[in-house]
Amino acid sequence: MTQHNFSAGPAVLPPIVREALSQALAPDPDGRPSIAEVSHRGPVFAAVADELSARLRQLMDLGDDQHLLLLQGGANLQFAWLPMALAADRTPAYLTSGHWGEKALAEARRVGPAEEVGSSMDSGFTDLPEMGHLPGRCAYLHYTGNETIHGVQFEQPPAVAVPLAADLSSEFLSRPYPYRELAFAYAGAQKNLGIPGLTVVVIRQDLLDRIPDGLPAYLDYRKWIAADSMLNTPTTLAWFAALETCRWIESRGGLAFFEQRNRQRAHLLYDFIDDSAYWSNPVAGHARSVMNVPFFPVDTQRSGDVVAKAEEEGLLGLKGHRALGGLRASLYNALDDAAVEILIDFLGDYERRYG
Amino acid sequence: MTQHNFSAGPAVLPPIVREALSQALAPDPDGRPSIAEVSHRGPVFAAVADELSARLRQLMDLGDDQHLLLLQGGANLQFAWLPMALAADRTPAYLTSGHWGEKALAEARRVGPAEEVGSSMDSGFTDLPEMGHLPGRCAYLHYTGNETIHGVQFEQPPAVAVPLAADLSSEFLSRPYPYRELAFAYAGAQKNLGIPGLTVVVIRQDLLDRIPDGLPAYLDYRKWIAADSMLNTPTTLAWFAALETCRWIESRGGLAFFEQRNRQRAHLLYDFIDDSAYWSNPVAGHARSVMNVPFFPVDTQRSGDVVAKAEEEGLLGLKGHRALGGLRASLYNALDDAAVEILIDFLGDYERRYG
Repeated sequence: MTQHNFSAGPAVLPPIVREALSQALAPDPDGRPSIAEVSHRGPVFAAVADELSARLRQLMDLGDDQHLLLLQGGANLQFAWLPMALAADRTPAYLTSGHWGEKALAEARRVGPAEEVGSSMDSGFTDLPEMGHLPGRCAYLHYTGNETIHGVQFEQPPAVAVPLAADLSSEFLSRPYPYRELAFAYAGAQKNLGIPGLTVVVIRQDLLDRIPDGLPAYLDYRKWIAADSMLNTPTTLAWFAALETCRWIESRGGLAFFEQRNRQRAHLLYDFIDDSAYWSNPVAGHARSVMNVPFFPVDTQRSGDVVAKAEEEGLLGLKGHRALGGLRASLYNALDDAAVEILIDFLGDYERRYG
Repeated sequence: MTQHNFSAGPAVLPPIVREALSQALAPDPDGRPSIAEVSHRGPVFAAVADELSARLRQLMDLGDDQHLLLLQGGANLQFAWLPMALAADRTPAYLTSGHWGEKALAEARRVGPAEEVGSSMDSGFTDLPEMGHLPGRCAYLHYTGNETIHGVQFEQPPAVAVPLAADLSSEFLSRPYPYRELAFAYAGAQKNLGIPGLTVVVIRQDLLDRIPDGLPAYLDYRKWIAADSMLNTPTTLAWFAALETCRWIESRGGLAFFEQRNRQRAHLLYDFIDDSAYWSNPVAGHARSVMNVPFFPVDTQRSGDVVAKAEEEGLLGLKGHRALGGLRASLYNALDDAAVEILIDFLGDYERRYG
């Protein structure tokens, strides 16, 4: 039975990336080191690093004034790092559309004053927030491009006159994105760029002047820029997996291909859910995520049973996040083309048998 | 020609660990997810996490009052994190025996006042530092168990009455170590515990009360303890590699086996160097590292040529750190038993031909 992995992250890898990782790590009778065993400062890994940076910059279509950093620590570290480094004596503003936006705001408030200029909490995060007034001397406006748990996505970056800072973790590389409009962006690799352990950060040159000199070296983006993202030992295997994933994305037709395909299959699933009296997704149509689809049976108590029966059918990783319950289907680039139709068949069948 | 990898980190893996990684990632005709593709909160990865924690605790012989954390960011992040979290209103003290100790001290001083209570800089870091007076209300005494670049190692933790904080990166799991004497310890995995992306931290319960409440969540060790080291997505593949490495260590006879073997082969190399008029290691005998052996030809200008000719013979990763030049042989657990003798043969041969 073919299995399909709907996990929200760590998530399904393209089979060709798994194969590249597996082959790269296969024991060598002559003891030649694998990519995971060579110095990150040597020529073998430098080739990986250089090609990864070049391919990512191209996929993202970054401007010359935008630095690309390959870091560790995930979005959670950026939640605090960003305001520590870039708020300076200004006030950062936060637009909250779900669980992760709330965490980002809470961390910013541990660092200093931060204003929430809009939240869709009153709707239970089933819609995008309306934006109120930005503070005077606004450091940046932070938003969460795609809320992995609540399944709420901004179609485009908010249109504002202040620097934009975007958490793009779970939609990263799922479509062409106007990165040139962003002053700062960050995303974990474990959705559409391989395996956990790599955090992509984009930072615009003009923001660097704000970084306070007393900051720990590790939290100074300038030092990472100067060190080509190797202030210390990088997660070399995650970089290698990211490079193989970039190659695969391009071989399939680039981000434009994935945008079209990802939209198609998300619509397929949302249409099925909307047509069903048994399954539901509460998010407003214009705010629905193309990557992460949370959904619920009429009797939410049955969610655990649905997850279990889905697993028996080879449909894996459908358990909703503990913050929300229910189910969630993550439709990342590497998910097999047939998976959504098989999921829909299963859900229709479940409804007929238990609904 | 069999190759031998003397890289200081990322470093040689046990072939059986490479094989486990390679097999775990091999594409599956039925699409079953690999260990790198499943949720870190699901049962498959939980089994890895639980066994890894249990085996590490046992290998390290930790006390019940010592928490084991599996983090990201390497020693460099701990350099700042440790004083931010645990210095409180006390003064941390630093004992400096090389490059990494200096970096740890510099980062502590960005965070607040810190005292250097001893340094062997005057000797060019070729010896252990003598310790001066500890400050009143001393937060902790920090030392670098093994200096990876200068090849200087503490035989035992310094004997003091204040909490000890140890950077054990490059000697971690190379021998039994009196962890119960330590209040805090940290080490990267990329030497003796697998692949980059995992930082092991040990913290004693009584230190937790010092953590200021306003700290970013990411930098609050208590939150990591409460979350079983999964405050966010862990580097799952590095955890898996660490587990396989722990299993391998035990299968070979545990840390006692490696201590004996590691000492034997380090002595072999140091004895050869000391007997040679061509090669030299400047470190005082009682301070020499069992893991990292920096050495130099009489004509240090020839270092690059030595590295190149060694590579032709399959002896890899011998280039010294850019901070020191020369050569360096790292003798981690996974280095093949024959490697040191082959290196010595090569060095003797080089001396006869070019010396």
